[in-house]
Amino acid sequence: MNDWFTSLKTETPQKGFELAIEMARKGVAYTQPSADIRKRLRSKYAKNADSLIMTSQVIAIHFQTVAAANNYWK
Amino acid sequence: MNDWFTSLKTETPQKGFELAIEMARKGVAYTQPSADIRKRLRSKYAKNADSLIMTSQVIAIHFQTVAAANNYWK
Amino acid sequence: MNDWFTSLKTETPQKGFELAIEMARKGVAYTQPSADIRKRLRSKYAKNADSLIMTSQVIAIHFQTVAAANNYWK
Amino acid sequence: MNDWFTSLKTETPQKGFELAIEMARKGVAYTQPSADIRKRLRSKYAKNADSLIMTSQVIAIHFQTVAAANNYWK
Amino acid sequence: MNDWFTSLKTETPQKGFELAIEMARKGVAYTQPSADIRKRLRSKYAKNADSLIMTSQVIAIHFQTVAAANNYWK
Amino acid sequence: MNDWFTSLKTETPQKGFELAIEMARKGVAYTQPSADIRKRLRSKYAKNADSLIMTSQVIAIHFQTVAAANNYWK
Repeated sequence: MNDWFTSLKTETPQKGFELAIEMARKGVAYTQPSADIRKRLRSKYAKNADSLIMTSQVIAIHFQTVAAANNYWK
Repeated sequence: MNDWFTSLKTETPQKGFELAIEMARKGVAYTQPSADIRKRLRSKYAKNADSLIMTSQVIAIHFQTVAAANNYWK
Repeated sequence: MNDWFTSLKTETPQKGFELAIEMARKGVAYTQPSADIRKRLRSKYAKNADSLIMTSQVIAIHFQTVAAANNYWK
Repeated sequence: MNDWFTSLKTETPQKGFELAIEMARKGVAYTQPSADIRKRLRSKYAKNADSLIMTSQVIAIHFQTVAAANNYWK
Repeated sequence: MNDWFTSLKTETPQKGFELAIEMARKGVAYTQPSADIRKRLRSKYAKNADSLIMTSQVIAIHFQTVAAANNYWK
Repeated sequence: MNDWFTSLKTETPQKGFELAIEMARKGVAYTQPSADIRKRLRSKYAKNADSLIMTSQVIAIHFQTVAAANNYWK
């Protein structure tokens, strides 16, 4: 993969949240490298409540890391 | 998305808990941007015990972050 | 909601554990505000082993937060 | 409930692990207070691999808390 | 149970990882004490992707604890 | 197993992320040692959204550990 992740620092909590989302997606992309297959799966799981809640959980775990790295933007 | 998340600081644990709920929901909203679809899913999963428990878990993870950011409101 | 959560401090680990249970339940109640529906769901999931284990997990996550807030009652 | 949880301190990691198991079980017992129903459920989920793995996960989360409280028995 | 867990200290990250695996297994063994039943279950779940991913998750949680206890082998 | 894990230090967050992926996979490999079976399972779960999200979650948990070990690459 190209360089996509050089720092955990973000300017705001929201940017940190969006980095966490990117990290959650990359975790999927390393396991399923085909963008086509991911896109197809996404159109389905984005309509499945439990899949969405699970996705939200992965984001939450990554956000813990990003927030700690930014000292909670204090 | 508009600015929705500028600080992790809250006045009370309860406000922090409610921020954690908002964060859990935003994790879903970034993945499923359609408010209509989310509303429809919600009317179903809000009657499913396991979905509710999973939602409660995402809130718990975010609350850990919010609580640490507020030094546990000591 | 009324004020239900003003402090993470508790006198004993057990009171902290019970606070964690309350937090897990509130996470559900914010998502499903109807006490009637929650009661109905509960009578079912309280007889389902996996649901009970998942509930225990949410409690465990919240207890981590409560324990840290109380400096582990040292 | 009676007093069952007055301290997070244990003499050894193993005693801490066993406390974590007790905490995981209490998380279930508060939600399903009937010892009879719990016993019946247990005889089933103790033969279900996924239920056992989920149980092991709850123990792992509680053990994190117990280990931190004991400063990792250093 | 016999003494199986007297210290969280390990010489290397890999030994720490292997301790985390042992801890994940013990979490199962305390709940299902029969080695026969565990062996039978294992031959099945070791061929089930989701069970394997869940197992990997329990290991990850325990490894967090072991790594912290070893100050990340710095 | 051969030595595969001698340090948690990485040069960049991305290398840390890739170490977390490796750790998630090793968690599976210790439980299912047959590379053949793992390969077969992978071709299936890599097309299953929920399995991919769960995999992403294990990576997220390991990444927390790696990030802390590297002091968040500050």
